[in-house]
Amino acid sequence: MASLVIHGGAGTIPRANFTPESYQAARDGLADALRAGWAVLARGGLAVDAVEAAVVALEDHPSFNAGHGAVLNAAGDHELDAAIMDGRQRMAGAIASARAIRNPVRAARRVMDASDCVLLSAAGADAFAREQGLDMVEQSYFTTSLRQQHWLRAEEEKAGLLKRERSEAEKHGTVGAVAFDDAGNLAAATSTGGYTYKRVGRVGDTPIIGAGTYASNGVVAVSCTGLGEYFIRRGTAHDIAARIHYAGESLATATAAAIADLTEDKCGAGLIAVDGMGNIAMPHNTEGMYRGSVTADGVASVGIYVDDFAKLESFAAGL
Amino acid sequence: MASLVIHGGAGTIPRANFTPESYQAARDGLADALRAGWAVLARGGLAVDAVEAAVVALEDHPSFNAGHGAVLNAAGDHELDAAIMDGRQRMAGAIASARAIRNPVRAARRVMDASDCVLLSAAGADAFAREQGLDMVEQSYFTTSLRQQHWLRAEEEKAGLLKRERSEAEKHGTVGAVAFDDAGNLAAATSTGGYTYKRVGRVGDTPIIGAGTYASNGVVAVSCTGLGEYFIRRGTAHDIAARIHYAGESLATATAAAIADLTEDKCGAGLIAVDGMGNIAMPHNTEGMYRGSVTADGVASVGIYVDDFAKLESFAAGL
Repeated sequence: MASLVIHGGAGTIPRANFTPESYQAARDGLADALRAGWAVLARGGLAVDAVEAAVVALEDHPSFNAGHGAVLNAAGDHELDAAIMDGRQRMAGAIASARAIRNPVRAARRVMDASDCVLLSAAGADAFAREQGLDMVEQSYFTTSLRQQHWLRAEEEKAGLLKRERSEAEKHGTVGAVAFDDAGNLAAATSTGGYTYKRVGRVGDTPIIGAGTYASNGVVAVSCTGLGEYFIRRGTAHDIAARIHYAGESLATATAAAIADLTEDKCGAGLIAVDGMGNIAMPHNTEGMYRGSVTADGVASVGIYVDDFAKLESFAAGL
Repeated sequence: MASLVIHGGAGTIPRANFTPESYQAARDGLADALRAGWAVLARGGLAVDAVEAAVVALEDHPSFNAGHGAVLNAAGDHELDAAIMDGRQRMAGAIASARAIRNPVRAARRVMDASDCVLLSAAGADAFAREQGLDMVEQSYFTTSLRQQHWLRAEEEKAGLLKRERSEAEKHGTVGAVAFDDAGNLAAATSTGGYTYKRVGRVGDTPIIGAGTYASNGVVAVSCTGLGEYFIRRGTAHDIAARIHYAGESLATATAAAIADLTEDKCGAGLIAVDGMGNIAMPHNTEGMYRGSVTADGVASVGIYVDDFAKLESFAAGL
């Protein structure tokens, strides 16, 4: 039986920042992404197709920092990172600092399937996506009024006009998915706009195979969220695989240890993972993490905090 | 007692391609880089300063595919990747697809020391290096007549005018250094132009922390060379650290296993490594690897093939 986990970013997510409408919109976005991924798995499809479908849905939803709804960098532009990895032969594809690809995870998939490369950067990534016939968009497609507000606050902060710690939710966020399919294959995908006011050209852990994204059949699939520099330096996603493969740790132990390491670094961190038997984990050291799962028994749940992670009664009907 | 290892790329390196002069130039380049790194370690300096100094020397030498002497991509341009990692706190810096930085490893070092980032890409990397006051150059600075020949042959091959397998040496190459200092610190650095006729924007394993470059005190420092996509998918450098840390393997066993994995992938591969006790390893599955080492007893050696790795009698005198 298959399983699927998704995330839409971890961090300090003040409940006061939500209106009832924006809270419901985020939950609906998670549920829609779960449905998109589960539709693939429920018909016996591949894990790699499921994670791509789930991440496309999250990229398309304005509540999350990826694709439409991505944050703005220091220059007021969008630069997008994404990766996908298929655990079957550990094939992988990724793009960094792309500017014109509507769905970055689709471009990562094409890098994996249709090029000799694993990672393409900047204008080279955009040119490849265009060659491949993917949907290309203007920068304005990615921009929402909320992300513009966050950018303006960052500008004011830089100018000394604003003395206030921005919330984690304003600063960063990431989306991702991991899946285990009926044939026992694992896959992971991650996509992000980075963090608000990031340096032009800054690349986080998302497109770094072994840092923010990793999948290897029989071991684990991982997608991370948090300040990427810490995940790169720790090699977090590969480290979880190594703990399981070399040290014989369980998924729960290995993922908890990875989060403990990042807690030691004072890094707000979360991740989702599924192991070679379909067990899932969603550890995070932050107040909240946008997340959802469908377990082998077909039960779908979404939530943001500890106390609101709840079963989606209508899930199967919505497929 | 300190130790230092450097490499200038691994692959099929036909002896017939060398003139007596070009063979001697490559050996001299390796010896000069060893001296530059060892000068730091011999005065009690830091491993991270030693690997930077050694890699700067290799970047400056036209025999090697990094900095001056870098290969040309499919568009006939240079795009340079580099990384450095300090094992003390596992701090790291890297640049990808940079076009105007004379010494990419110096820019990687500045990313580590003077920014909140680990990886900067493309124009963002160049802009950062310029802000930091590093030496900036025109693309022509990197180009040598040999690399232009390689690019022209690749063009002819693409056009079907040339039916000949290019040698590995024509296609790629990388430079790197790993060091263990008197205080027991580890560090690694790697720098490359990629491979001839690579897709615009293609990023290999060199600037990917955990793939081509990794260092963690008490465990290992690693710098890799070979077709980077395989190293990224395997997380080779971090995998060696995990074999030592989680599986208790020796440096020799862990590095041999990593090369065996890449041999299974049919990837021509080499790497240099030093462990937390200063033991060194230089395994490769290719005919040759440009390499050099200074062991704890102060003996310096350089070589390209199995039968020409020989002690540099004049090494200490040349410091």
